[in-house]
Amino acid sequence: MKDMDIKAVFIGDKSENGSVYKRLLNKMVDEHLGWRENYLPADLSAISEADKTSPSYIATQEHMVEVLEEVSQRMRAGSIPWHSAGRYWGQMNAETLMPSLLAYNFAMLWNPNNVALESSMATSQMEAEVGQDFAKLFNMNDGWGHITADGSIANLEGLWYARCLKSIPLAVKEVFPEKVKNKTKWELLNLSVAEILEMVETFTDKELDTVKAASSRSGRHIQALGKWLVPQTKHYSWMKALDICGIGLDQMITIPVQENYRMDITVLENTIRELAEQKVPILGVVAVVGTTEEGQVDHVDKIVELREKLYKEGIYFYLHVDAAYGGYARALFLNEAGEFIPYESLADFFEEHHVFNYDVTIDKNVYDGFKATAEADSITIDPHKMGYVPYAAGGIVIKHKNMRNIISYFAPYVFEKSVKAPDMLGAYILEGSKAGATAAAVWTAHHVLPLNVTGYGQLIGASIEAAQHFRAFLEQLSFIIKGKPIEVYPLNQPDFNMVNWVLKVKDCTDLKVTNELNEKMFNLSSYVAGDIYSERFITSHTTFTKAEYGDSPIKFIKRMGFSKEEWQKEQKVTLLRAAIMTPYLNDDKLFEFYTKAITEAIEKKLNEIL
Amino acid sequence: MKDMDIKAVFIGDKSENGSVYKRLLNKMVDEHLGWRENYLPADLSAISEADKTSPSYIATQEHMVEVLEEVSQRMRAGSIPWHSAGRYWGQMNAETLMPSLLAYNFAMLWNPNNVALESSMATSQMEAEVGQDFAKLFNMNDGWGHITADGSIANLEGLWYARCLKSIPLAVKEVFPEKVKNKTKWELLNLSVAEILEMVETFTDKELDTVKAASSRSGRHIQALGKWLVPQTKHYSWMKALDICGIGLDQMITIPVQENYRMDITVLENTIRELAEQKVPILGVVAVVGTTEEGQVDHVDKIVELREKLYKEGIYFYLHVDAAYGGYARALFLNEAGEFIPYESLADFFEEHHVFNYDVTIDKNVYDGFKATAEADSITIDPHKMGYVPYAAGGIVIKHKNMRNIISYFAPYVFEKSVKAPDMLGAYILEGSKAGATAAAVWTAHHVLPLNVTGYGQLIGASIEAAQHFRAFLEQLSFIIKGKPIEVYPLNQPDFNMVNWVLKVKDCTDLKVTNELNEKMFNLSSYVAGDIYSERFITSHTTFTKAEYGDSPIKFIKRMGFSKEEWQKEQKVTLLRAAIMTPYLNDDKLFEFYTKAITEAIEKKLNEIL
Repeated sequence: MKDMDIKAVFIGDKSENGSVYKRLLNKMVDEHLGWRENYLPADLSAISEADKTSPSYIATQEHMVEVLEEVSQRMRAGSIPWHSAGRYWGQMNAETLMPSLLAYNFAMLWNPNNVALESSMATSQMEAEVGQDFAKLFNMNDGWGHITADGSIANLEGLWYARCLKSIPLAVKEVFPEKVKNKTKWELLNLSVAEILEMVETFTDKELDTVKAASSRSGRHIQALGKWLVPQTKHYSWMKALDICGIGLDQMITIPVQENYRMDITVLENTIRELAEQKVPILGVVAVVGTTEEGQVDHVDKIVELREKLYKEGIYFYLHVDAAYGGYARALFLNEAGEFIPYESLADFFEEHHVFNYDVTIDKNVYDGFKATAEADSITIDPHKMGYVPYAAGGIVIKHKNMRNIISYFAPYVFEKSVKAPDMLGAYILEGSKAGATAAAVWTAHHVLPLNVTGYGQLIGASIEAAQHFRAFLEQLSFIIKGKPIEVYPLNQPDFNMVNWVLKVKDCTDLKVTNELNEKMFNLSSYVAGDIYSERFITSHTTFTKAEYGDSPIKFIKRMGFSKEEWQKEQKVTLLRAAIMTPYLNDDKLFEFYTKAITEAIEKKLNEIL
Repeated sequence: MKDMDIKAVFIGDKSENGSVYKRLLNKMVDEHLGWRENYLPADLSAISEADKTSPSYIATQEHMVEVLEEVSQRMRAGSIPWHSAGRYWGQMNAETLMPSLLAYNFAMLWNPNNVALESSMATSQMEAEVGQDFAKLFNMNDGWGHITADGSIANLEGLWYARCLKSIPLAVKEVFPEKVKNKTKWELLNLSVAEILEMVETFTDKELDTVKAASSRSGRHIQALGKWLVPQTKHYSWMKALDICGIGLDQMITIPVQENYRMDITVLENTIRELAEQKVPILGVVAVVGTTEEGQVDHVDKIVELREKLYKEGIYFYLHVDAAYGGYARALFLNEAGEFIPYESLADFFEEHHVFNYDVTIDKNVYDGFKATAEADSITIDPHKMGYVPYAAGGIVIKHKNMRNIISYFAPYVFEKSVKAPDMLGAYILEGSKAGATAAAVWTAHHVLPLNVTGYGQLIGASIEAAQHFRAFLEQLSFIIKGKPIEVYPLNQPDFNMVNWVLKVKDCTDLKVTNELNEKMFNLSSYVAGDIYSERFITSHTTFTKAEYGDSPIKFIKRMGFSKEEWQKEQKVTLLRAAIMTPYLNDDKLFEFYTKAITEAIEKKLNEIL
């Protein structure tokens, strides 16, 4: 077998694979229970049959069952039916991979803690392998990665890497000045990561400890490192990260996005040049692969090119790619050998692997952006987003494994036991105790669906196809409600699987009124409405404000027939927002059934609103 | 029913409750599957019977089963049998609460994300209730708490709180100088948390935003805030936290511990006074409730007293209690109304609730330490330690709910929907996406075992009893191996449930040789030895070094018969270390069976070593 059948690996919108799930769940639980029973079988049991008949035992179990019944009631009354194949068009969420659920359930019974090896020989090894999977996914031969609690923590860790690394030359100047005697402060602040790592290689372990003690971990140098450049549409986790990391929001510079919501590279270049002119260094730049609100993919390739060009001029910045959302989509471009397919061969490649049924275009800019992620210094990638793994599972990958030694807290020898063992993660990560069960869940996902076109490529292809199909569907959609014609305006063709759109009364030139219409539609189609289980169309929403988006939405505003003045007056536009994650909507029959079904539901809601 | 029967809420060392677990697991999974089936039953199914018979579908499921088989093999071959009632005497780990496992499994099927309400109405509400449970556990009427990824993150968040709060007066001086015109910089740096919160109350929302923008989140003021004082035996997460938070290790001062491994309060006071003399402010002090290596409980009461005394002299420090390990033990002292029982009534109270079978003493110092945690500004408490909840579940509680507004990233109105809903956590925490399933697991644990003497008190009482019993057992233990008498030296009476001990050849005066003996015993009784499943005695170890412990181990060293000179020469002592977490060893029959069994196993190992 070559290409995976993604319908086979989910429980299913109507529990179609429920019996498979239960069979495997019980099999694995039995394997665990047997493991307990068979550890030194002659040992005395802790719980006797007499214990089990005592009134307090029986009463406690009754109480436990009552509590669990409340859990069941609360979950069923307070959850979102996003398992539905086509009623849920909202947040970045869908059902998760059945094998990951099973692996999590199973591994949790042993309660492994991947911070240390003593508690988690099996799952620590799995996490090491997952880290290698991430590195291969981004074609980083010397890369290293691990699972994080979430994407915000991964972003914070990326920033921490940048801060610590870039402070090393300043520390060297302090403690071993002769090593950098020919370098100016400006030059020291513009060494590349590779140069810094090379410099570090020349130190003994003890010298390195001295350097590290004088680096940003001391609390010094931090404000000297310069600016952190993020797209204007930044996720708010970047503000938190700069705050927490002591670099501070004063060091954050936001770069505007273009009409396609990708970072404006010309402005980026000009900003860096202006800062360099004033001798303000650039700590780093964040490129986003899959923006939270639009799913857009930054021109990582152009940022990498810019970095090369500026490097020749003595200006260097750390590059972190926030691919929390989009990272797994890189699998779409990899063959089974892990090679990134040339753009010219892509159409044939997709056809060979039956990736798309519908006429799908992958923009060359998007392709180039994904390809160039290999050149980043660090990347955030969340298995709990497009990895279809249950929460909480974020991830990070670094380009050079020995970057770890800059942030680590123990000399490696402390942990190097005689046995061949994976790394003791606690020394190399921001966090402490972490569930080994998460590693088992991610490892299982990567083994069931390889990180190339045959595995995740199939799943993510289905999602991109459904998004492009849905946008085309919206483009031709319209309603007549109580005699009033209602139009539908999807945003520009998305780079990934996120579709944003606006409902508008025809000829309405009032943006405020239109925003209210869409807010009402969201309120009627979200948890705010109450009994979400009976809702027939569920969505999320977003607001593009002038404060966050500048004037980039103007083209879209004009296309809807509003004047520029309306935008300047209202300064925001509300959109309905759908991350298309359901794995089933590349099936034409389903697509037609559900788009028809939600059209009816939207029509009903419009009748309520208008 | 009043007091819980803790044997009823675990799967059991020999799967005694395995059938109960499976019955409830299947019942709950069925409830979830039914929920999927019954959401709009007339909707088209995504996976048809024809799909299921396709070769690719069948091949994919076969592949999935193979991967899961590998997971099962790896877990069974690479896990630790700590479910055993008495073979495992090592890390802070044991089997976890059956109802928490079930709640996690169940809630995970919906994949709720507690960063935002749209994905997690049920589990966000549960997390809000868990936060209230934490606040009540520490008798903080105005408190607020939430679940964190782990204890390291909770410690980092506590430090972040301290840093942000203490920087507020400096920010006010900058942006609204007239508000603090009568205060010197020293006075501003020594305002209490209550005073800072009062000051903040006088600002409008917009003014507060201006103040926050000028606070430490700007990147400024951080180095002016002064020193962070931690016990010399600090967990390494404190070094990471100071590093990450931009405060830096240069601002860390370590306070020696006494012979009982509790922080030396006299030295603490003198250090603070010396710093104040030089006009160096104290950012904060960390007290530990349950040290990682010894389980000791700092004199929180004396630190609180000291703070009150110094406050009258114009010196104030933030107090964070790291009760990651010991926090849940406070339940032992609470009655069902949540009242902290007077020390005089404690013996009767424990007797009334049948907490101990064996003659257990709770040191008045330990009692006082636990009681005074109510006065901390923030506390780390980990459900995945003494909460017996599966990884990963840390936690934090703050004394005043409105401390949140200092670190938050959105004005509350953004999230205040018309519906009555729990808080949108993303705005108030360090992390981003987080598993709602964890909240369900912790909530369930707290409901099955209330956080007072009737619930967790029973469980933690059993653990403390077993620890004291085990220490007494070790005290009388000895061996004759190949004619050589071997002695056993337990460390001092533990404050909590951790027992450390040393094996020593009688009359041996060589500390190095003794350390080697204990290292060999650890190596023979840990994962390093390989096939841990067949091991009959499993333990962990720790090393007290002069660098980390100063001379506090000397009394113990001398008790074992070594000279002070041996300590000065070797500068470390290796101990075997056991967190006694098994819930069963307060049963005399089991205690006798297993202590006899491990005595034999240790004897066998000693024969191998010597």
